[in-house]
Amino acid sequence: MKEKTDVQLRLQSIRQRMKEEQIDAWIVLTSDDHGSEYIGNYFKCREYLSGFTGSAGSIVVLQKEVGLWTDGRYFLQAEKELEGSGIVLHRIGEENVPKIEEYLIQKLPIQATVGVDGSTIHVNAYRRLKKELDKKKIRIRLDCDLVGDIWQNRPVMCCKPAWELNLCYAGSSRMEKFAEFRKKLKEEGADYSVISSLDDIAWILNIRGNDIACNPLVLGFLVIGKSEVFWFVQKEAVDCSLEDKLQKEGILLRDYFEIYSFLAEELNMCCIYLDPERTNMLIYKNAKNEKKQRTILEGKNLTLLPKAIKNQTEIDNMRKAHRKDAVACIKFLYWLKTNIAKKNASDGTRQLNEKNMFESKALSEISLAEKLEKFRSEQEHYISPSFDTIVGYAEHGAIIHYKATAESNLTIQAENFVLIDSGGHYLEGTTDITRTIALGELTPEQKHHYTLVLKGNMNLAASKFRYGCSGIHLDSLARKALWAEGLDYNHGTGHGIGYLLNVHEPPNSFRCIMSESRDECTRLEPGMITSDEPGIYLPGKYGIRLENLILCKELEKNEFGRFMGFETLTLVPFDRDAILVEELEDWEREWLNQYHAKIREEIGGLLTPSEAAWLKEATAAL
Amino acid sequence: MKEKTDVQLRLQSIRQRMKEEQIDAWIVLTSDDHGSEYIGNYFKCREYLSGFTGSAGSIVVLQKEVGLWTDGRYFLQAEKELEGSGIVLHRIGEENVPKIEEYLIQKLPIQATVGVDGSTIHVNAYRRLKKELDKKKIRIRLDCDLVGDIWQNRPVMCCKPAWELNLCYAGSSRMEKFAEFRKKLKEEGADYSVISSLDDIAWILNIRGNDIACNPLVLGFLVIGKSEVFWFVQKEAVDCSLEDKLQKEGILLRDYFEIYSFLAEELNMCCIYLDPERTNMLIYKNAKNEKKQRTILEGKNLTLLPKAIKNQTEIDNMRKAHRKDAVACIKFLYWLKTNIAKKNASDGTRQLNEKNMFESKALSEISLAEKLEKFRSEQEHYISPSFDTIVGYAEHGAIIHYKATAESNLTIQAENFVLIDSGGHYLEGTTDITRTIALGELTPEQKHHYTLVLKGNMNLAASKFRYGCSGIHLDSLARKALWAEGLDYNHGTGHGIGYLLNVHEPPNSFRCIMSESRDECTRLEPGMITSDEPGIYLPGKYGIRLENLILCKELEKNEFGRFMGFETLTLVPFDRDAILVEELEDWEREWLNQYHAKIREEIGGLLTPSEAAWLKEATAAL
Repeated sequence: MKEKTDVQLRLQSIRQRMKEEQIDAWIVLTSDDHGSEYIGNYFKCREYLSGFTGSAGSIVVLQKEVGLWTDGRYFLQAEKELEGSGIVLHRIGEENVPKIEEYLIQKLPIQATVGVDGSTIHVNAYRRLKKELDKKKIRIRLDCDLVGDIWQNRPVMCCKPAWELNLCYAGSSRMEKFAEFRKKLKEEGADYSVISSLDDIAWILNIRGNDIACNPLVLGFLVIGKSEVFWFVQKEAVDCSLEDKLQKEGILLRDYFEIYSFLAEELNMCCIYLDPERTNMLIYKNAKNEKKQRTILEGKNLTLLPKAIKNQTEIDNMRKAHRKDAVACIKFLYWLKTNIAKKNASDGTRQLNEKNMFESKALSEISLAEKLEKFRSEQEHYISPSFDTIVGYAEHGAIIHYKATAESNLTIQAENFVLIDSGGHYLEGTTDITRTIALGELTPEQKHHYTLVLKGNMNLAASKFRYGCSGIHLDSLARKALWAEGLDYNHGTGHGIGYLLNVHEPPNSFRCIMSESRDECTRLEPGMITSDEPGIYLPGKYGIRLENLILCKELEKNEFGRFMGFETLTLVPFDRDAILVEELEDWEREWLNQYHAKIREEIGGLLTPSEAAWLKEATAAL
Repeated sequence: MKEKTDVQLRLQSIRQRMKEEQIDAWIVLTSDDHGSEYIGNYFKCREYLSGFTGSAGSIVVLQKEVGLWTDGRYFLQAEKELEGSGIVLHRIGEENVPKIEEYLIQKLPIQATVGVDGSTIHVNAYRRLKKELDKKKIRIRLDCDLVGDIWQNRPVMCCKPAWELNLCYAGSSRMEKFAEFRKKLKEEGADYSVISSLDDIAWILNIRGNDIACNPLVLGFLVIGKSEVFWFVQKEAVDCSLEDKLQKEGILLRDYFEIYSFLAEELNMCCIYLDPERTNMLIYKNAKNEKKQRTILEGKNLTLLPKAIKNQTEIDNMRKAHRKDAVACIKFLYWLKTNIAKKNASDGTRQLNEKNMFESKALSEISLAEKLEKFRSEQEHYISPSFDTIVGYAEHGAIIHYKATAESNLTIQAENFVLIDSGGHYLEGTTDITRTIALGELTPEQKHHYTLVLKGNMNLAASKFRYGCSGIHLDSLARKALWAEGLDYNHGTGHGIGYLLNVHEPPNSFRCIMSESRDECTRLEPGMITSDEPGIYLPGKYGIRLENLILCKELEKNEFGRFMGFETLTLVPFDRDAILVEELEDWEREWLNQYHAKIREEIGGLLTPSEAAWLKEATAAL
C-alpha cells in the first residue's frame, strides 16, 4: 500500500477530531481574524490542510469526501497541487458546480452539524450560510479550530514593528480622527465601536506595520469608546516610546488575544457598534453577550468613508507618489523598449514572421519584474511593492491574476504584448498601474483591441457625472466600446486604493455586478481614488489591461445639480505603437494628447536626457 | 368669527376621533389596499381630508398642527389648494424639510402613539417607519380608518365589469401561468401565495377591468394554493359565465372584503409567501396569525418577472399596437405641423420675432390632447389612454408632470416647442410615447438641447451590453451627453410597461438613483419592455423629452458572454426641424436614418397620400 502523503495524514487527523467533536462537516475558509484579503502564514490553515497555495479557496471535509472550492484564476494550479490528495476540485462559476451551502444540503442528513472556525467567518457570511442550512435544520458550530488543533510546527504570528505615519503624510492627527469618529458614533447612538479590519485601524491610528506581505498593517483590534481607546496588539510590535505617546493620548494597549475575553467580560450595559461585513463571528458573539445587557448596532465601519475620502494632504502626497512612480515606470519603459529595439537591430533586417529571440536570462517575465522593482526602489521614500507584480507575456497576459514562477517564466520576445500590473507603497501613498506594451509590430487585431481598451479607460476617466452616482452607474462607460463588438472582461473596472494601506480598499469601486456587501453602491465623493482598468483577455494569445488611478473631483455646480469628474493621477504614457489613431474619436485623441503632454511636462525634467528624449517621442501628439 | 371650511370641519372631526382612540398623530397616505400608483375615488382619503387633489402626498394630523408632504410636481398646486385650510405644506426634497418620521420624532413625546390605516401602508414602508419611531419608543396603531369613520357620503368602490383577455392576446393561458407559478412556489417551499397588487392579479388571471382610471384592472386579492385559487373580488364585477368558467378551472370567487377574515381564520399550519413591498400591513398581520402556526416567507411576487418578460404573442402584439399608435401619432403630427404651417403662411411674410397667434379655440394644449385622442380612438381595438395625456407648450413643457386645466391651458403659437407625452391601451398592448415638436424656427440653443436629448435616447436604444446588467448600469448611457455639458433631468430614464396593464410596471427600469425596493437592480431579460425617455427642462422656457419603448433582445453569445440589445418598438419620427445634424456622430446619424426609414416602410402604407408624403419628408435621410 502506498504511503500516505502529508495532506492525507492531516485530513485523517481532522476527521478524527471531527468524530471527537461530533461534527459532520468541517469548513476551512481562507481568512484571518480580520477578514483580510491577503493573510499571514500563521493563518494559512487551508493551505496547510490541502496543499493548495492559491490566494482564494475553501475546503469542506466530510468523513467520506473532501472538496476544494476555488475560482477560475486557480483551476490549473489547484489541479496540480491537489493531485494525489483525494481532494475533489469544485470549479466555482462552472455549470453544475454547487455552492458550498448547496453541497452541504445535498450531502448531509437533517439536523447534522457543520463546523467552521468562528474567527474566520464574518457575520454576514455566517448569516447567509445559516439561512441555507436552516432549511435542513443543520446546526453550525463556531467554537473550534480543528486545523489549529492538529497543526504541528504552526508558524508564529507575524509581529513586525509598528511605526508612526507622520502628520505631514497623514494630514490629520489621531485625535482629530477620533473626535470625528466619536461624533458619528454618538449620532448612531452607540457607546463603543469594535474595529477588526486592519486597514481601518492603521488609518485611524496613523500607524503602519508589516504583518502581511505588501500590506503595511499591524495585526490587532481596536475598541473605541467615548473617552478611551483599547488597541489589542502584539505588544512586542510597539516600542516603548510609541506606547507612551499613545497612552498620553488615551490609547491603551492590551494583548492581541485578549480582545475576546475583554468583549465577553468588560463592557457593561452599553451599545456596541460593529460592521457585520468586517467582524468575525467570535468577536460578534462575545460582543453580543446577553448577560451584559448590551445592544449591538450594525453598520459599516465608521472609518470606511473618511479613510476612502482622502484629505488634501493625502491628495497632494498621492500626486507626488505618482510622479515618483511615473519616473520609475518611464525609466523601465525606456529600458524595455530600447532593449527590444537593440535586439531587433542586431538581428539585421526585420523579419516579421520570425521570432526574435533573446537570451532567456536577459529578458524574462521575472527579470522584467525585478528591473521594474529596481527602478521603484531607487525612488525616495519607497517602501515596498503594493502587491505581487504581474508580468504576463503573450498568452500569460490573458491569465488575469498570473504570477510568473521559475517554471512558468516566459522569455520575452520582440513581438506581441507584455502586460505589467504593479504598484508601490511610498510614504506619499500607494500606486497601482497596468500598462500593456507592444514588443514588436502588432497585428491590426491586436491594435484594434488595444484601442478599444484605451477607449474604455478614457471614457471613464473623462466622464462628467451628477453627484449621487456610484461606481455601479459608471462602469458601463468603460465597457461600452468593448460591448459594442461583443467583447468584455470578467472583472470589475476598478477598486478603491488606500493611502499607504491596502491596494484594494473599499467601499468605492467600478463594477457592473452587485456584490453581497453592495459597497459599489457607495456614492462617489470628491477625494476618493479609484482604479480605472478595463481589459480584454484572449486565452492562449494575449491580454491587454490599461490601468490608471483616478481622483474624484468636484467640477461644477449649477441649476441642474452638482457635477463631478476625475483627475488622472497616474502619469505614464500609453503605448503609441499600439493605438489605431483612426479609430479614436476627436475628443479621445485630444484627451490622449493632453494627457501625454502633461506627462511630458511633469516627468520629462526628472529623467536622464536619453530617457527624456524617448519620452518626448512616446508622448508626441497623435 | 369666520365660518369653518369643509376641510377645517373634517380635521376637527379627525382630531375628535384621535382623542377617543388616544392617538397622538394620524397619518393619511395616498394608497388603496393594493398599493396602487393611481387610486379610485373610494380610496382618496387624503384628498377628502385636505382638499389637495395631486396624485401623491401624505398628511400628518396632530392636535395642534397638520402638514401635507408632497414633491416638486405639486408645490404650486398644493399651495393653492391648501390655502386657508391651516395645513402646512412640507416641500419634499427642499432643504431643512424633515421626513415624516423625523417630524414625528421631533414633535411627539416619548412613548406616544401614531396611527395609520394599516390597509394603506405596505410592510416595508411600515418597517422603515417603525425603525425610526422605535428610537423614541413611539408605538404605531394600524387598526383604525379614522377618515373612513368621519367620511360622509364616501363614494362607493368602483365596480366595473371584469372581462377576459383572449388567449390570442395573452399568449399563455391561466392554467399555464398557474402551473408555472406553483412550480416556483414549491421551489420556495411555500404552500400559499397572497397577491394584492392588481396588475399581478390581472396578468395571471388573463382578466381585465376598469376600476382605476387608465388602469384596466379589477379590484381584488388572490390567494393561490397548491390546487385551489381564491379570488376576492366584488362579485357584481364578474358575470355568471365568467364565474362558471373560472370555477371549472379551480378559481373560486369570494367577496372582496372577506380576504382579511379568510387569512385570519382559514389556512392552518402552512407557509404563506408574500411580497413585503406589495402587501399591506392588515393583510400581513392576518396572514401571520400566530395561532394558526403559519410561517411567512417573504420575497417579490412570483408573478413579477413572468409578467415583465413578455411572451412571444405579447411581443408580436406589442409591435402591432405600436404600428397602430404610430399611425395615430403620425396623423396627429401631420395635422399639427400643416396647421402651424398654414397659420404661418396666412400671416404673410414670416416674422420671427412676432408671435403668430391662433384663435385659442383652434389650437391649445387641451385641444391638441383631444385631437391626438381622436386619432387613437379611430384605431381598431383601441381601449383608452394609458395615462392622462401631457401636452406642455413652451414653459409648461418644463413641468414634468404637467396636466393642462381650463385655467392653465395655453394657446399654441408658431414658435418654441410643445412636449406631448401620451399612450394608449389596445387589445394588442400598451403604448407610451413622448415627442417634443418644433412649432416654428428654433434658436440654436433649443436645437442643441433637442440634439443632446436625442443622443441620450439613441445611446441607450443602440447600446449592446453583457447579460446580467440591470437598468442601474445602463442609465448613464442616456445621460452622458447631457452630463458632459453640466445638464441633467430629475427623473428616471425609463420604466417597465405592462401588456394592457399599468403603464408603469416594475421591476425593470433605467434609473441612476437606487430606490428602496431596489427594483432597478433586476437583470434585464429578453422580452422586457422599458421606456427610454431622457429629457431636459428649462423652467420658464421649455421642456424636451423624447420617449420610445424598447424591447430587450438577445443579440449574440460568444466566448466573452451573452450580449443583449434593444429593439425600438415606437415608430414615430423625431423632429428633423429640431436636430443639429452636425452635432451627431456618424453612427448616430446612421442609426437615426435607419430608424426613420423603418418608420417610413412600416407606417407609410397605412396613411392617406398627403400624410404619407409628409412622412416621407419627415423621415428623409439626414
